[in-house]
Amino acid sequence: MRWRTHFPSRNRSLSFRSKKDSAPGRYRFSIGTFRGLQQPELSRKLFKLIKAENTAIGAYESAGRERVSIASQLSDWGESTEDEAVSDISDKLGVLLAEIGEQEDLFAQSLEDYRGLLKQIRNTETSVQPTRDQRAKITDEIQKLKYKEPTSTKLVTLEQELVRAEAQNLVAEAQLTNVTRSKLKEAFDIHTAAVIERAEKQIILARHARRLLNFLDDSPIVPGDPRLAYEHSAEAKQVLEDAEIDLRSWERTVEPISSGAAATKETPDGILATAAEESDAGGAEIVGEGPGREPRDISPIGEDAPSIKQEKEAIAPEASGALQAESQA
Amino acid sequence: MRWRTHFPSRNRSLSFRSKKDSAPGRYRFSIGTFRGLQQPELSRKLFKLIKAENTAIGAYESAGRERVSIASQLSDWGESTEDEAVSDISDKLGVLLAEIGEQEDLFAQSLEDYRGLLKQIRNTETSVQPTRDQRAKITDEIQKLKYKEPTSTKLVTLEQELVRAEAQNLVAEAQLTNVTRSKLKEAFDIHTAAVIERAEKQIILARHARRLLNFLDDSPIVPGDPRLAYEHSAEAKQVLEDAEIDLRSWERTVEPISSGAAATKETPDGILATAAEESDAGGAEIVGEGPGREPRDISPIGEDAPSIKQEKEAIAPEASGALQAESQA
Repeated sequence: MRWRTHFPSRNRSLSFRSKKDSAPGRYRFSIGTFRGLQQPELSRKLFKLIKAENTAIGAYESAGRERVSIASQLSDWGESTEDEAVSDISDKLGVLLAEIGEQEDLFAQSLEDYRGLLKQIRNTETSVQPTRDQRAKITDEIQKLKYKEPTSTKLVTLEQELVRAEAQNLVAEAQLTNVTRSKLKEAFDIHTAAVIERAEKQIILARHARRLLNFLDDSPIVPGDPRLAYEHSAEAKQVLEDAEIDLRSWERTVEPISSGAAATKETPDGILATAAEESDAGGAEIVGEGPGREPRDISPIGEDAPSIKQEKEAIAPEASGALQAESQA
Repeated sequence: MRWRTHFPSRNRSLSFRSKKDSAPGRYRFSIGTFRGLQQPELSRKLFKLIKAENTAIGAYESAGRERVSIASQLSDWGESTEDEAVSDISDKLGVLLAEIGEQEDLFAQSLEDYRGLLKQIRNTETSVQPTRDQRAKITDEIQKLKYKEPTSTKLVTLEQELVRAEAQNLVAEAQLTNVTRSKLKEAFDIHTAAVIERAEKQIILARHARRLLNFLDDSPIVPGDPRLAYEHSAEAKQVLEDAEIDLRSWERTVEPISSGAAATKETPDGILATAAEESDAGGAEIVGEGPGREPRDISPIGEDAPSIKQEKEAIAPEASGALQAESQA
């Protein structure tokens, strides 16, 4: 039995990334990998992570189920020993162990909630990819045409299309960062709170279980000597009642995580978040602005979209309309 | 997300057993069941429990492994977002999550220790069964002979054999209760302490992870607006260092479980316990007294062995010799 504090040396650098090159065999062929490749580039990593999380949740569910079953078996076994003390204590211990198992299952359910939030990020990533592709495609066409046919009138049309594509992408990228940050925060708020809840409740249960163990007299007898009569039946029952009271009066002690995202409800991005909550499919649906809403501002970021600056007022409704059309498709 | 206290109604009776009849389908065909049937009656229940525990431990190992893998994937994904804040926080969060995963694995290892102690009880059960069978067989032969041939001289020999068999069984039963009680106590001491250790350490890790989340500004931006620069890099690094310090300075807080079994080391039962520790096979080896030792006392318990009372002095060395012979076989 180990009581050592374990912080593995590979974590010592306080980052995963620095050791990246020294981890051979990190990539393996698997169905998961194959399916991941069918996803758009942008959402591929999260797609795989969400899949792995599903496996982890399944493992917790399995552990919880087994623990409940073992608890029942322990009680049965104790009864079969025909030793009154072993019988009573194993039965009561079984009740507490079963509850520890139930906590594993509740933990798994909270992880499902967390996983649902990660899916919202993934879905937004999936929906942003086409706007990047479209913008890149038009930029590419313009470059080719400028080289082959610099005086073509088609260039004007393409430049207009580019401005619209840039506007659409700009909105999508804002949605992506807003959803990513707020949902990431919310997801790990739930995840870490669930870790703490499971832990605190299991500590309650395990501490009461240890009280039960002290009622079992394990001093050895010599052959033929009888055991002292078991006199802790009422106390053992009291332990279970105490455990139940403690568990019922458990309250979260974690500090809430601060969030600026609550203010988004009335913004386009708030609408996006709501739309994303409804959608759970892995498909490439565009999570757009919602009908009847326009982005409040689509001023560009950085230097790669100078043309929008000039035409900002003119294209805004148009770009917004394009988004709406796509989001309703 | 649920914060409710969960104490399922089926546990309300504070015992498993009262609901036994209302659990249809509790017995299923499975390899486990089939194998269990090959075990002696006495150790069958524990045999199955130990098998189920192996599955539970496997589930925790799997959960731990997935958590570590997901932590690494989270860090990779964060980097790919090209958002400095998301990148740094997901990487640091990954380190803490990986450690939470490692704690699952350490927990599984402690459960292996606990499972080893249950095996010691099971092995003793297995070894006691033949002494019960032998005693029952001779008793049966005597009854038959008394009915068929009441004056047979073979009866005297059989009565002597019975006395020896009773003595042997009496020792075995004492060994069984001693091993059962002390190892059961020790096993769940380890199990519950491991539940508490995992819980306390994961609380430390999850609370520090929540500090990280607060460094992520999730207030929404409008399209085109830049994010405020990320300025929590040093603080985030400090969180990991704090977590590592807290984890390293963790100490068990559980009260030790009292045990009277430590006093057994010099008794025959102490010898048995030591012998059982060496043996992990499911076979039917007799764990006997060990060479050169005699039971200190083989006075009978109950009324079903009156013949021993009369011949106690005479048969004691003989019974002991029989035990020795069998234990060395």
